[in-house]
Amino acid sequence: MDLLLSAANAALLVAHDLRRDAECILLLLGPPDPPRAIRIVGSLLQSYGPDIRANAGPIRKALHHASRIEREPCRGLFPARRGFSELIEAFPEPIVLLREDGKDIRDAELPRDVSFVLSDSVDLLEEEEAVVAAKRIEVCSVGPRSLHTSDAIAIVHNELDRRYPE
Amino acid sequence: MDLLLSAANAALLVAHDLRRDAECILLLLGPPDPPRAIRIVGSLLQSYGPDIRANAGPIRKALHHASRIEREPCRGLFPARRGFSELIEAFPEPIVLLREDGKDIRDAELPRDVSFVLSDSVDLLEEEEAVVAAKRIEVCSVGPRSLHTSDAIAIVHNELDRRYPE
Repeated sequence: MDLLLSAANAALLVAHDLRRDAECILLLLGPPDPPRAIRIVGSLLQSYGPDIRANAGPIRKALHHASRIEREPCRGLFPARRGFSELIEAFPEPIVLLREDGKDIRDAELPRDVSFVLSDSVDLLEEEEAVVAAKRIEVCSVGPRSLHTSDAIAIVHNELDRRYPE
Repeated sequence: MDLLLSAANAALLVAHDLRRDAECILLLLGPPDPPRAIRIVGSLLQSYGPDIRANAGPIRKALHHASRIEREPCRGLFPARRGFSELIEAFPEPIVLLREDGKDIRDAELPRDVSFVLSDSVDLLEEEEAVVAAKRIEVCSVGPRSLHTSDAIAIVHNELDRRYPE
């Protein structure tokens, strides 16, 4: 859970503020009752800081919500029982898959509104790759080394911040 | 403490491994008994993973060491009672200061062996800036937005990884 929360911090926070134009979806596929997804919407969050332990409480609580329909039990947090394919198919934006053998992100075309798909230390399954392939515009890599998810997200945001300053 | 540990993770970890050519020094200036520094040496660490709560224990324990002379109470962890100036003066490598108004890091000359100085959400004091100024080769910025320390470190490592692949 801490790794997911670190990734959410990298996705949603800048110094002293939230990225109010960012959303992050955490997908939990482990026991006891998978799948659980939680969409975290930067523009709606009211109390979300960098303290991982403080964020863990509301997110765990929201994850008790087990319906396939999204609810908002806590401002900005949208849990639902949804799996990988269902999430990807609902993405409104074009998708960039991050993978170590992808094109250098510095050389890729990135629209302002874009979703990135990252896996944790386990690569996507073949059928998950196929679901993404149907919607993706690019497979990108953030650099020559294999990184933790939160560090990869920081690098992606930096690339977008440079191309689309506020 | 969690913010410092997140920064240490960004400095010391890649996916599935440690950055064995990296060192990180955390400097704690808050109560109860400042200053306390702890140097964490990637090549010496034996059990250091991405779990912040697991890392907190040994680091807290090491920080009880209150002598000005470094000890190694736990493999790879070197605590000492040292303040900012003393630490900076002991740095063997050239120093790059990260500050929001600095030169874009992508355009800066960065030697392979280099130390970066980052502050947390509070800027360096004037006298701290002066100590760094005596040893620094550059003031750099990682991009157009003000970021958390851990995200800035991820971006700096990415820049060095690209210039100096293993």
